[in-house]
Amino acid sequence: MNGAESLVHTLIACGIDTVFANPGTSEMHFVAALDRIPGINCVLCLDETVASGAADGYWRVTGRPAATLFHCGPGLANGLANLHNARRARSGILNIVGDQATYHRPLDAPLTADTEGWARPVSGFVRTAKSAATVGRDAAEAIAAARSGTIATLILPADTAWTEGGVAGETCEVPARAMPDDEAIASAVEVLRSGEPAMLLLGGRTLRDATLRQATAIAAATGCKLLSEMFNARMERGQGRPPIERIPYFIDAAIHTLSGIKHLILVEAKPPVGFFAYPGKPGRLWPEDCTLHTLAAIDQDGSAALTALAQAIEGAEPEIPATPRPAPSTGAIEPETVATTIAALLPDQAIVIDEGISFGRGFSRFTHGAAPHLWLQVPGGAIGGGLPTAVGAAVSAPGRRVVAIQADGSAMYSIAALWTAARQNLDITVILLANRKYAILLHEFVGVGANPGPTALGMLDLGNPDLNFVKLAEGMGVAAAQAPTMARLNELLASSVEHKGPFLIELLTG
Amino acid sequence: MNGAESLVHTLIACGIDTVFANPGTSEMHFVAALDRIPGINCVLCLDETVASGAADGYWRVTGRPAATLFHCGPGLANGLANLHNARRARSGILNIVGDQATYHRPLDAPLTADTEGWARPVSGFVRTAKSAATVGRDAAEAIAAARSGTIATLILPADTAWTEGGVAGETCEVPARAMPDDEAIASAVEVLRSGEPAMLLLGGRTLRDATLRQATAIAAATGCKLLSEMFNARMERGQGRPPIERIPYFIDAAIHTLSGIKHLILVEAKPPVGFFAYPGKPGRLWPEDCTLHTLAAIDQDGSAALTALAQAIEGAEPEIPATPRPAPSTGAIEPETVATTIAALLPDQAIVIDEGISFGRGFSRFTHGAAPHLWLQVPGGAIGGGLPTAVGAAVSAPGRRVVAIQADGSAMYSIAALWTAARQNLDITVILLANRKYAILLHEFVGVGANPGPTALGMLDLGNPDLNFVKLAEGMGVAAAQAPTMARLNELLASSVEHKGPFLIELLTG
Repeated sequence: MNGAESLVHTLIACGIDTVFANPGTSEMHFVAALDRIPGINCVLCLDETVASGAADGYWRVTGRPAATLFHCGPGLANGLANLHNARRARSGILNIVGDQATYHRPLDAPLTADTEGWARPVSGFVRTAKSAATVGRDAAEAIAAARSGTIATLILPADTAWTEGGVAGETCEVPARAMPDDEAIASAVEVLRSGEPAMLLLGGRTLRDATLRQATAIAAATGCKLLSEMFNARMERGQGRPPIERIPYFIDAAIHTLSGIKHLILVEAKPPVGFFAYPGKPGRLWPEDCTLHTLAAIDQDGSAALTALAQAIEGAEPEIPATPRPAPSTGAIEPETVATTIAALLPDQAIVIDEGISFGRGFSRFTHGAAPHLWLQVPGGAIGGGLPTAVGAAVSAPGRRVVAIQADGSAMYSIAALWTAARQNLDITVILLANRKYAILLHEFVGVGANPGPTALGMLDLGNPDLNFVKLAEGMGVAAAQAPTMARLNELLASSVEHKGPFLIELLTG
Repeated sequence: MNGAESLVHTLIACGIDTVFANPGTSEMHFVAALDRIPGINCVLCLDETVASGAADGYWRVTGRPAATLFHCGPGLANGLANLHNARRARSGILNIVGDQATYHRPLDAPLTADTEGWARPVSGFVRTAKSAATVGRDAAEAIAAARSGTIATLILPADTAWTEGGVAGETCEVPARAMPDDEAIASAVEVLRSGEPAMLLLGGRTLRDATLRQATAIAAATGCKLLSEMFNARMERGQGRPPIERIPYFIDAAIHTLSGIKHLILVEAKPPVGFFAYPGKPGRLWPEDCTLHTLAAIDQDGSAALTALAQAIEGAEPEIPATPRPAPSTGAIEPETVATTIAALLPDQAIVIDEGISFGRGFSRFTHGAAPHLWLQVPGGAIGGGLPTAVGAAVSAPGRRVVAIQADGSAMYSIAALWTAARQNLDITVILLANRKYAILLHEFVGVGANPGPTALGMLDLGNPDLNFVKLAEGMGVAAAQAPTMARLNELLASSVEHKGPFLIELLTG
């Protein structure tokens, strides 16, 4: 057994079943081992940003890590932006980065780069394998790190793969997440009973049905407000589930939403701050006279904390108001009409990937009446996360429909994801919001206090020439059509969610 | 004058005239300054890998740095692979990376990342601006570094752009490259007169007509061999110019080419090593009993060194054998026929961008008879360099035709470059070599000693579905057509080089 074979055996033994791959020469022995030893689903991605985003999507749906396979430092570099998003989503991923043989690295061949240096800022675990004999154990430790919800990067010099003497690693234990602190719960009880305006800010794994019910019970019993973070990795939403709003993106609205709050209780949430700084505006979103309390830190079990808190408060679980499922909208193409149509036509247990940026920003408030679904955002803010996350989500959950709400500018960062969707015949419907501009930047530009002239428009406008997403999709084997009206959107969305395989709807929103 | 305005004034004063940009919110004050102050050509790229590759192409044609504009750490990360290529090409680039405001960074907003950490492995100069008052001076120093042929990364926190009190920086002197060492020249003379088999290995800026003539004179006078590095940033080639072969890519051929050499004289070249290591094969390409000599290190002036050497040797400039310009080939689609057609139809002073990988590997040896042209490769080996480099080359050299010889797998890494080609109406002809597989990896896989099974093929084969590059190009506003025969290739290539604007030819080579 060579090192590569020991690595494949370790992956299988430790529960890795999927690799999103774009291999190169230095990974050929590993590819050969994957070929010989059955048990891993290898999904080819046309570049690494698709692979890393797909692994993020896989984790967010399943809570289990997938692996990526990258080629040397530059291959890893191509995947970094979506690894940044995955880190902010607190997703676990195992990166396997093939690299120069240990003895070849000092010769500085062209593809030699600082692979570890590039990996470190996004990885909770980085290791370069030293030998074929130890790579199995390295992988087992890396997988344990990934299973705990961090990015683990294992660099695999070619000779540690091809040399004989590999030993499969054994599963390492993953420590359970820390339980809530009794004092933190007691302190939250005191705050909530004080009668002062309080808010629970929920993040991380608390945005699931059962936990949201606990939070809603606490809110009903104490009058505190409930809010979730601005961008969330995963929210369970839809009919029968407690609706929860998010911190708004725009700075003034965000500050307004938190105004008057005297106690902000964080539950797997970070202290809320502006997405960017703006001249003369505060960076922290909570009022100056508001006290922060941590019920559960981001690496603790916030759901257990909320359960304990609900018991202490003696909050009875409130009835969730029935939100009627709307009919598809037939008005003009506006954010509200499009969101209403999505709410109307979303299949049960769908997975929504939201990289809707400007046009899609308000969709969530019109979709509480949809069938129960998952809603995944791009928590790191690096654009281009949407389509790759959709690929990973669809690979992880056969039989569920993925609906990707996708802005046009961001789509072009990782458009090659469509090809993988076609090859794997993934059940993804892309609603491509084609406004043909970087609308968010035009908004920000005006905020700077000027009307854009030709130079600025040349950097903020996506027209001239217009992108034709139908042709782009068809060029990668994905069926597609344009929707110039709501009627056509309704027709295409209804039909696409009924049919196996991917479909792209280019919605002209401009 | 705010910091952003001082930065624009500094760019203009220091000779930067082009910015390849993909801005975000934190760069809006800089975009506004570019809008207000005329003098910079801002070219929008749909992702950063296009922008960084374009800046590389711009340098390689002009010898002057362009700037890039990136958004935060993740934006820089997307550009790293082509910055790696640029570093290996020894190209000078000024990266301007907008980032969180200085006081906002500690709050760890979603897009906050280790921007400096990611920049360092590719940059000879990294600095984060501290204030609006000093950003002009920072930029002037960064531009001086870029002009000397390194990548300079200037990180621009948003508040250093928007704060008043900017001061334009003054041009810094760029030290001349070191002249050749008299001892090195004397030693090379001695070696070349010894009668022992010797070879001049040329790299960097020596691969230009005038210098190649000096090298050819030395070879004619002494009987030494001439060779260039495996992948070269820029070669002046074609009719009337001395032909020079490259070190072969495949390890056995490379070792064979250098076998028997007793003295290898490096002229702006690195000691030659295998692109990768292979079990049981050496990593160094020169024979064990061969001595290395450095006539000019990679940061020295190798052309001056060769001129001095030619004088010392008293080599008379030999006549360059006339290579007849061939007729377009009409045979089957093979590397030799395609290369012959390119040689036949390449316009005078064309710029060839060669990311032909497997099918295109041998093209150079059949194109010496083409009209005088530049030939640019991807020296860093990170795939996806081709189309972006073509964009930068075309922006830098209006009136010259750029011909991009582009493999299909690599093309998908940076296909969005086509949109910038359309928007700028760039004179680029893409010859897209569609073999519908990662042919180089299939070759390497077989070298591992196995026939690929379904899992391996699934990672090495690009079919199922076939990519349709005509639709992809048209989707981005680039006219395109398929060439299933040599006759059609000849027709399309001849016509495209005569017409303004980009054109893509999908050549079915599979």
